[in-house]
Amino acid sequence: MVKVIVRAFSISLDGYGAGPEQSLENPLGVGGRGLHEWLFPTRTFQRILGKDAGTSGVDDEFAARSFENVGAWILGRNMFGPIRGPWPDEHWKGWWGDNPPYHVPVFVLTHHARPPLQMEGGTTFHFVTDGIQSALERARAAANGKDVRVGGGVATLQQFFRAGLIDECHIAISPVLLGAGEPLFADMNLVALGYRCTQHVCSPAATHVVLTRQG
Amino acid sequence: MVKVIVRAFSISLDGYGAGPEQSLENPLGVGGRGLHEWLFPTRTFQRILGKDAGTSGVDDEFAARSFENVGAWILGRNMFGPIRGPWPDEHWKGWWGDNPPYHVPVFVLTHHARPPLQMEGGTTFHFVTDGIQSALERARAAANGKDVRVGGGVATLQQFFRAGLIDECHIAISPVLLGAGEPLFADMNLVALGYRCTQHVCSPAATHVVLTRQG
Repeated sequence: MVKVIVRAFSISLDGYGAGPEQSLENPLGVGGRGLHEWLFPTRTFQRILGKDAGTSGVDDEFAARSFENVGAWILGRNMFGPIRGPWPDEHWKGWWGDNPPYHVPVFVLTHHARPPLQMEGGTTFHFVTDGIQSALERARAAANGKDVRVGGGVATLQQFFRAGLIDECHIAISPVLLGAGEPLFADMNLVALGYRCTQHVCSPAATHVVLTRQG
Repeated sequence: MVKVIVRAFSISLDGYGAGPEQSLENPLGVGGRGLHEWLFPTRTFQRILGKDAGTSGVDDEFAARSFENVGAWILGRNMFGPIRGPWPDEHWKGWWGDNPPYHVPVFVLTHHARPPLQMEGGTTFHFVTDGIQSALERARAAANGKDVRVGGGVATLQQFFRAGLIDECHIAISPVLLGAGEPLFADMNLVALGYRCTQHVCSPAATHVVLTRQG
Protein backbone atom coordinates (compact mmCIF):
# COMPACT_ATOMS: atom_id res chain seq x y z
CA MET A 1 0.00 0.00 0.00
CA VAL A 2 1.27 3.43 -0.98
CA LYS A 3 1.79 5.60 2.09
CA VAL A 4 1.55 9.36 2.12
CA ILE A 5 4.35 10.71 4.25
CA VAL A 6 5.93 13.88 5.47
CA ARG A 7 9.59 13.68 6.41
CA ALA A 8 12.16 16.04 7.80
CA PHE A 9 9.76 18.93 8.02
CA SER A 10 11.44 21.46 10.31
CA ILE A 11 9.67 23.87 12.61
CA SER A 12 10.87 26.39 15.16
CA LEU A 13 10.21 26.23 18.91
CA ASP A 14 7.38 28.67 18.34
CA GLY A 15 5.89 26.40 15.68
CA TYR A 16 6.77 28.10 12.41
CA GLY A 17 7.53 25.98 9.36
CA ALA A 18 9.08 28.86 7.45
CA GLY A 19 10.12 32.39 8.25
CA PRO A 20 8.22 35.42 6.97
CA GLU A 21 8.85 37.20 3.64
CA GLN A 22 10.02 34.39 1.38
CA SER A 23 11.99 35.74 -1.55
CA LEU A 24 14.69 34.81 -4.03
CA GLU A 25 17.25 35.78 -1.38
CA ASN A 26 15.40 33.98 1.43
CA PRO A 27 13.85 30.80 0.00
CA LEU A 28 12.99 29.68 3.56
CA GLY A 29 11.79 33.09 4.69
CA VAL A 30 13.73 35.44 6.96
CA GLY A 31 15.54 33.36 9.58
CA GLY A 32 14.22 30.15 8.04
CA ARG A 33 17.67 28.72 7.44
CA GLY A 34 18.02 28.17 11.19
CA LEU A 35 15.23 25.60 11.02
CA HIS A 36 17.45 23.26 9.05
CA GLU A 37 20.74 23.51 10.91
CA TRP A 38 20.22 19.95 12.16
CA LEU A 39 20.12 18.71 8.56
CA PHE A 40 22.96 20.55 6.82
CA PRO A 41 25.91 18.79 8.53
CA THR A 42 24.50 15.28 8.06
CA ARG A 43 26.18 12.74 5.81
CA THR A 44 22.91 12.38 3.88
CA PHE A 45 22.68 16.08 3.10
CA GLN A 46 26.38 16.45 2.37
CA ARG A 47 26.11 13.62 -0.17
CA ILE A 48 23.37 15.54 -1.96
CA LEU A 49 25.88 18.36 -2.25
CA GLY A 50 28.32 15.85 -3.74
CA LYS A 51 30.57 15.68 -0.69
CA ASP A 52 31.83 12.52 0.92
CA ALA A 53 31.63 13.80 4.47
CA GLY A 54 29.11 14.69 7.15
CA THR A 55 27.85 13.53 10.53
CA SER A 56 26.22 10.26 11.46
CA GLY A 57 23.84 9.73 14.38
CA VAL A 58 20.21 10.58 15.08
CA ASP A 59 19.99 13.55 12.74
CA ASP A 60 21.52 11.65 9.87
CA GLU A 61 19.26 8.66 10.49
CA PHE A 62 16.19 10.86 10.10
CA ALA A 63 17.71 12.60 7.10
CA ALA A 64 18.43 9.28 5.41
CA ARG A 65 15.01 7.88 6.24
CA SER A 66 13.43 10.95 4.67
CA PHE A 67 14.62 9.87 1.23
CA GLU A 68 13.93 6.14 1.57
CA ASN A 69 11.27 4.55 -0.64
CA VAL A 70 9.99 7.87 -2.01
CA GLY A 71 8.35 7.37 -5.41
CA ALA A 72 6.88 10.81 -5.95
CA TRP A 73 6.73 14.22 -4.26
CA ILE A 74 4.03 16.81 -3.84
CA LEU A 75 5.10 20.42 -3.24
CA GLY A 76 3.21 23.61 -2.63
CA ARG A 77 4.02 26.24 -5.17
CA ASN A 78 6.06 28.37 -2.78
CA MET A 79 8.40 25.45 -2.25
CA PHE A 80 9.01 25.46 -5.98
CA GLY A 81 9.78 29.14 -6.19
CA PRO A 82 9.18 32.74 -5.11
CA ILE A 83 6.90 33.64 -8.04
CA ARG A 84 3.26 34.40 -7.17
CA GLY A 85 0.35 34.67 -9.61
CA PRO A 86 0.57 33.67 -13.31
CA TRP A 87 3.93 32.42 -14.61
CA PRO A 88 5.50 35.35 -16.49
CA ASP A 89 7.43 32.84 -18.64
CA GLU A 90 8.99 29.40 -18.28
CA HIS A 91 12.33 30.67 -17.07
CA TRP A 92 11.94 29.64 -13.38
CA LYS A 93 12.85 25.98 -12.93
CA GLY A 94 12.91 25.64 -9.15
CA TRP A 95 15.44 26.52 -6.46
CA TRP A 96 17.73 23.59 -7.14
CA GLY A 97 19.51 24.07 -10.48
CA ASP A 98 19.54 21.65 -13.41
CA ASN A 99 19.65 18.46 -11.31
CA PRO A 100 17.18 18.77 -8.40
CA PRO A 101 17.53 16.36 -5.45
CA TYR A 102 14.22 14.56 -6.13
CA HIS A 103 15.02 12.14 -8.99
CA VAL A 104 11.33 11.16 -9.25
CA PRO A 105 8.16 12.90 -10.47
CA VAL A 106 7.28 16.01 -8.45
CA PHE A 107 3.74 17.40 -8.47
CA VAL A 108 3.59 21.14 -7.82
CA LEU A 109 0.29 22.59 -6.61
CA THR A 110 -0.54 25.83 -8.40
CA HIS A 111 -3.50 27.79 -9.73
CA HIS A 112 -1.63 28.47 -12.95
CA ALA A 113 -1.14 25.81 -15.58
CA ARG A 114 2.25 25.14 -17.09
CA PRO A 115 3.67 22.28 -19.18
CA PRO A 116 5.70 19.59 -17.37
CA LEU A 117 9.34 20.39 -16.88
CA GLN A 118 11.85 17.60 -17.31
CA MET A 119 15.09 18.11 -15.41
CA GLU A 120 18.33 16.18 -15.24
CA GLY A 121 18.62 13.16 -12.95
CA GLY A 122 15.06 11.85 -13.20
CA THR A 123 13.13 14.78 -11.75
CA THR A 124 10.10 15.97 -13.70
CA PHE A 125 7.97 18.82 -12.34
CA HIS A 126 4.26 18.45 -13.10
CA PHE A 127 2.01 21.43 -12.40
CA VAL A 128 -1.36 20.49 -10.93
CA THR A 129 -4.15 23.05 -11.02
CA ASP A 130 -7.09 21.01 -9.73
CA GLY A 131 -6.26 20.53 -6.06
CA ILE A 132 -4.64 18.16 -3.61
CA GLN A 133 -6.81 15.09 -4.32
CA SER A 134 -5.90 15.26 -7.97
CA ALA A 135 -2.24 15.79 -7.15
CA LEU A 136 -2.32 12.80 -4.83
CA GLU A 137 -3.96 10.54 -7.41
CA ARG A 138 -1.37 11.46 -9.98
CA ALA A 139 1.47 11.10 -7.47
CA ARG A 140 0.23 7.68 -6.33
CA ALA A 141 0.09 6.50 -9.91
CA ALA A 142 3.58 7.82 -10.60
CA ALA A 143 5.09 6.47 -7.38
CA ASN A 144 5.24 2.93 -8.70
CA GLY A 145 4.28 1.34 -5.38
CA LYS A 146 6.60 3.50 -3.33
CA ASP A 147 5.55 6.28 -0.91
CA VAL A 148 4.33 9.74 -1.82
CA ARG A 149 6.20 12.40 0.14
CA VAL A 150 4.47 15.71 0.73
CA GLY A 151 7.28 18.22 1.03
CA GLY A 152 5.38 21.28 2.25
CA GLY A 153 5.09 24.13 2.86
CA VAL A 154 2.80 24.74 5.79
CA ALA A 155 -0.32 25.60 3.76
CA THR A 156 0.06 22.42 1.74
CA LEU A 157 0.63 20.24 4.84
CA GLN A 158 -2.41 21.76 6.50
CA GLN A 159 -4.56 20.92 3.48
CA PHE A 160 -3.37 17.32 3.51
CA PHE A 161 -3.71 16.93 7.29
CA ARG A 162 -7.23 18.37 7.32
CA ALA A 163 -8.26 15.92 4.60
CA GLY A 164 -6.81 13.06 6.70
CA LEU A 165 -4.45 12.13 3.89
CA ILE A 166 -1.12 12.04 5.75
CA ASP A 167 -0.27 8.58 7.12
CA GLU A 168 2.94 9.52 8.91
CA CYS A 169 4.77 12.77 9.55
CA HIS A 170 8.28 13.30 10.84
CA ILE A 171 8.84 16.76 12.27
CA ALA A 172 12.16 18.18 13.46
CA ILE A 173 11.76 20.87 16.10
CA SER A 174 14.82 23.11 15.95
CA PRO A 175 16.02 25.04 18.99
CA VAL A 176 15.41 28.45 17.45
CA LEU A 177 12.69 31.07 17.67
CA LEU A 178 11.38 32.60 14.45
CA GLY A 179 8.82 34.96 15.96
CA ALA A 180 6.69 35.07 12.83
CA GLY A 181 6.03 33.06 9.70
CA GLU A 182 3.74 30.17 8.92
CA PRO A 183 2.51 28.32 12.03
CA LEU A 184 2.16 24.62 11.27
CA PHE A 185 -0.36 23.71 13.96
CA ALA A 186 -2.61 26.79 13.88
CA ASP A 187 -6.34 26.11 13.56
CA MET A 188 -5.81 22.40 13.06
CA ASN A 189 -6.78 19.78 15.65
CA LEU A 190 -4.44 16.85 15.00
CA VAL A 191 -5.91 14.85 17.88
CA ALA A 192 -9.42 15.11 16.45
CA LEU A 193 -7.93 14.18 13.08
CA GLY A 194 -6.61 10.94 14.60
CA TYR A 195 -2.92 11.65 15.03
CA ARG A 196 -0.69 10.90 17.95
CA CYS A 197 3.02 11.06 18.63
CA THR A 198 4.55 7.62 18.04
CA GLN A 199 8.24 8.43 18.18
CA HIS A 200 10.30 11.02 20.06
CA VAL A 201 14.08 11.15 19.75
CA CYS A 202 16.43 14.04 20.44
CA SER A 203 19.81 15.17 19.27
CA PRO A 204 21.67 18.27 20.41
CA ALA A 205 20.43 19.93 17.22
CA ALA A 206 16.74 18.99 17.13
CA THR A 207 13.86 17.10 18.64
CA HIS A 208 12.54 14.54 16.18
CA VAL A 209 8.93 13.43 16.49
CA VAL A 210 6.81 11.17 14.34
CA LEU A 211 3.07 11.75 14.21
CA THR A 212 1.03 8.81 12.97
CA ARG A 213 -2.62 8.62 11.97
CA GLN A 214 -4.33 5.87 13.94
CA GLY A 215 -6.88 3.42 12.62
CA MET B 1 18.64 42.27 40.96
CA VAL B 2 15.28 40.53 41.16
CA LYS B 3 14.70 38.44 38.04
CA VAL B 4 11.29 37.62 36.63
CA ILE B 5 11.31 34.01 35.56
CA VAL B 6 9.14 31.29 34.11
CA ARG B 7 10.15 27.75 34.95
CA ALA B 8 8.90 24.29 34.08
CA PHE B 9 6.12 25.59 31.89
CA SER B 10 5.01 22.61 29.81
CA ILE B 11 3.61 22.75 26.31
CA SER B 12 2.55 20.12 23.81
CA LEU B 13 4.20 19.50 20.44
CA ASP B 14 1.43 21.56 18.89
CA GLY B 15 2.18 24.42 21.26
CA TYR B 16 -0.63 24.28 23.81
CA GLY B 17 0.09 25.20 27.43
CA ALA B 18 -3.12 23.67 28.68
CA GLY B 19 -5.85 21.50 27.27
CA PRO B 20 -9.35 22.81 26.50
CA GLU B 21 -12.26 22.88 28.95
CA GLN B 22 -10.55 23.37 32.30
CA SER B 23 -12.78 22.19 35.15
CA LEU B 24 -12.66 20.85 38.68
CA GLU B 25 -12.10 17.39 37.20
CA ASN B 26 -9.55 18.61 34.65
CA PRO B 27 -7.46 21.34 36.29
CA LEU B 28 -5.06 21.25 33.32
CA GLY B 29 -7.81 21.00 30.71
CA VAL B 30 -8.71 17.86 28.80
CA GLY B 31 -5.51 15.92 28.08
CA GLY B 32 -3.45 18.51 29.93
CA ARG B 33 -1.99 16.00 32.38
CA GLY B 34 0.08 14.55 29.56
CA LEU B 35 2.00 17.82 29.40
CA HIS B 36 3.54 17.13 32.79
CA GLU B 37 4.49 13.46 32.53
CA TRP B 38 8.16 14.48 32.48
CA LEU B 39 7.73 16.15 35.88
CA PHE B 40 5.68 13.68 37.92
CA PRO B 41 8.31 10.92 38.32
CA THR B 42 11.11 13.31 39.32
CA ARG B 43 12.64 13.26 42.79
CA THR B 44 11.77 16.96 43.15
CA PHE B 45 8.09 16.42 42.44
CA GLN B 46 7.88 13.24 44.50
CA ARG B 47 9.32 15.13 47.49
CA ILE B 48 6.51 17.68 47.17
CA LEU B 49 4.15 14.72 47.53
CA GLY B 50 6.06 13.73 50.66
CA LYS B 51 7.75 10.72 49.09
CA ASP B 52 11.44 9.90 49.35
CA ALA B 53 11.74 8.50 45.84
CA GLY B 54 11.79 9.64 42.22
CA THR B 55 14.10 9.95 39.25
CA SER B 56 17.25 12.00 38.89
CA GLY B 57 18.68 13.29 35.62
CA VAL B 58 17.82 16.10 33.21
CA ASP B 59 14.12 16.28 34.07
CA ASP B 60 14.80 16.39 37.78
CA GLU B 61 17.49 19.03 37.32
CA PHE B 62 15.00 21.31 35.60
CA ALA B 63 12.33 20.49 38.17
CA ALA B 64 14.69 21.32 41.03
CA ARG B 65 15.91 24.51 39.36
CA SER B 66 12.30 25.62 38.97
CA PHE B 67 11.97 26.02 42.75
CA GLU B 68 15.39 27.56 43.41
CA ASN B 69 15.58 31.13 44.67
CA VAL B 70 11.86 31.83 44.17
CA GLY B 71 10.70 34.59 46.52
CA ALA B 72 7.19 35.15 45.18
CA TRP B 73 4.83 33.79 42.53
CA ILE B 74 2.36 35.35 40.15
CA LEU B 75 -0.51 33.21 38.87
CA GLY B 76 -3.35 33.83 36.49
CA ARG B 77 -6.68 33.21 38.08
CA ASN B 78 -7.35 29.97 36.18
CA MET B 79 -4.23 28.50 37.70
CA PHE B 80 -5.75 29.21 41.10
CA GLY B 81 -9.07 27.58 40.36
CA PRO B 82 -11.91 26.75 37.97
CA ILE B 83 -14.23 29.57 39.15
CA ARG B 84 -14.94 32.35 36.64
CA GLY B 85 -16.57 35.71 37.38
CA PRO B 86 -17.19 37.04 40.91
CA TRP B 87 -16.25 34.81 43.84
CA PRO B 88 -19.49 33.21 45.09
CA ASP B 89 -17.92 32.92 48.56
CA GLU B 90 -14.49 32.33 50.09
CA HIS B 91 -14.72 28.58 50.03
CA TRP B 92 -12.29 27.94 47.15
CA LYS B 93 -8.70 27.98 48.39
CA GLY B 94 -6.79 26.73 45.36
CA TRP B 95 -6.16 23.30 43.86
CA TRP B 96 -3.55 22.28 46.39
CA GLY B 97 -5.19 21.67 49.78
CA ASP B 98 -4.24 23.33 53.07
CA ASN B 99 -0.50 23.39 52.45
CA PRO B 100 0.19 24.54 48.86
CA PRO B 101 3.64 23.88 47.36
CA TYR B 102 4.57 27.59 47.14
CA HIS B 103 5.65 28.50 50.70
CA VAL B 104 6.00 32.17 49.69
CA PRO B 105 3.55 34.97 48.79
CA VAL B 106 1.53 34.21 45.66
CA PHE B 107 -0.14 37.02 43.71
CA VAL B 108 -3.25 35.91 41.84
CA LEU B 109 -4.43 38.07 38.92
CA THR B 110 -8.21 38.52 38.96
CA HIS B 111 -10.85 41.10 38.17
CA HIS B 112 -12.64 40.33 41.44
CA ALA B 113 -11.29 41.51 44.78
CA ARG B 114 -10.93 39.16 47.69
CA PRO B 115 -9.07 39.37 51.03
CA PRO B 116 -5.67 37.68 51.30
CA LEU B 117 -5.76 34.01 52.13
CA GLN B 118 -3.12 32.67 54.50
CA MET B 119 -2.44 28.97 54.10
CA GLU B 120 -0.23 26.53 55.97
CA GLY B 121 3.47 26.31 55.19
CA GLY B 122 4.13 29.96 54.38
CA THR B 123 1.89 30.41 51.32
CA THR B 124 -0.35 33.48 51.28
CA PHE B 125 -2.56 34.15 48.27
CA HIS B 126 -2.99 37.84 47.47
CA PHE B 127 -5.63 38.81 44.92
CA VAL B 128 -4.56 41.59 42.58
CA THR B 129 -7.22 43.42 40.60
CA ASP B 130 -5.19 46.18 38.97
CA GLY B 131 -3.12 44.33 36.41
CA ILE B 132 0.24 42.70 35.83
CA GLN B 133 2.43 45.74 36.56
CA SER B 134 0.85 46.11 39.97
CA ALA B 135 1.15 42.39 40.64
CA LEU B 136 4.81 42.51 39.67
CA GLU B 137 5.58 45.48 41.90
CA ARG B 138 3.97 43.76 44.86
CA ALA B 139 5.66 40.46 44.08
CA ARG B 140 9.08 42.12 43.75
CA ALA B 141 8.62 43.80 47.12
CA ALA B 142 7.53 40.53 48.70
CA ALA B 143 10.27 38.43 47.09
CA ASN B 144 12.92 39.73 49.45
CA GLY B 145 15.65 39.91 46.83
CA LYS B 146 14.85 36.54 45.33
CA ASP B 147 13.25 35.89 41.94
CA VAL B 148 9.61 36.35 40.99
CA ARG B 149 8.26 33.28 39.23
CA VAL B 150 5.33 33.70 36.88
CA GLY B 151 3.51 30.38 36.94
CA GLY B 152 1.08 30.86 34.08
CA GLY B 153 -1.26 30.13 32.47
CA VAL B 154 -0.86 31.01 28.83
CA ALA B 155 -2.85 34.27 28.93
CA THR B 156 -0.78 35.49 31.87
CA LEU B 157 2.53 34.51 30.27
CA GLN B 158 1.52 36.27 27.07
CA GLN B 159 0.77 39.47 28.98
CA PHE B 160 4.16 39.37 30.69
CA PHE B 161 6.05 38.50 27.50
CA ARG B 162 4.37 41.25 25.50
CA ALA B 163 5.30 43.76 28.18
CA GLY B 164 8.92 42.54 27.97
CA LEU B 165 8.84 41.64 31.66
CA ILE B 166 10.10 38.04 31.55
CA ASP B 167 13.88 37.76 31.93
CA GLU B 168 14.18 34.01 31.47
CA CYS B 169 11.73 31.26 30.60
CA HIS B 170 12.20 27.51 30.80
CA ILE B 171 9.75 25.57 28.66
CA ALA B 172 9.37 21.80 28.58
CA ILE B 173 8.02 20.51 25.28
CA SER B 174 6.30 17.19 25.92
CA PRO B 175 5.96 14.55 23.21
CA VAL B 176 2.18 14.69 23.10
CA LEU B 177 -0.39 16.34 20.88
CA LEU B 178 -3.30 18.19 22.49
CA GLY B 179 -5.07 19.33 19.35
CA ALA B 180 -6.73 22.27 21.06
CA GLY B 181 -6.31 24.49 24.09
CA GLU B 182 -4.31 27.62 24.74
CA PRO B 183 -1.47 28.17 22.25
CA LEU B 184 1.50 29.75 24.00
CA PHE B 185 3.17 31.36 20.99
CA ALA B 186 0.11 32.56 19.07
CA ASP B 187 0.14 36.20 18.00
CA MET B 188 3.33 36.92 19.88
CA ASN B 189 6.65 37.64 18.21
CA LEU B 190 9.29 36.56 20.72
CA VAL B 191 12.13 37.46 18.36
CA ALA B 192 10.89 41.03 18.02
CA LEU B 193 10.48 41.09 21.80
CA GLY B 194 14.19 40.29 22.15
CA TYR B 195 14.14 36.61 23.12
CA ARG B 196 16.31 33.83 21.89
CA CYS B 197 16.90 30.22 22.80
CA THR B 198 19.92 29.99 25.13
CA GLN B 199 19.69 26.39 26.29
CA HIS B 200 18.38 23.19 24.69
CA VAL B 201 18.56 19.86 26.50
CA CYS B 202 16.52 16.72 25.93
CA SER B 203 15.41 13.76 27.95
CA PRO B 204 13.32 10.85 26.72
CA ALA B 205 10.34 12.61 28.31
CA ALA B 206 10.72 16.21 27.16
CA THR B 207 12.73 18.82 25.31
CA HIS B 208 13.84 21.54 27.69
CA VAL B 209 14.56 24.98 26.28
CA VAL B 210 15.43 28.23 27.97
CA LEU B 211 14.41 31.49 26.30
CA THR B 212 16.29 34.54 27.48
CA ARG B 213 15.63 38.21 26.84
CA GLN B 214 18.72 39.85 25.39
CA GLY B 215 20.10 43.25 26.28
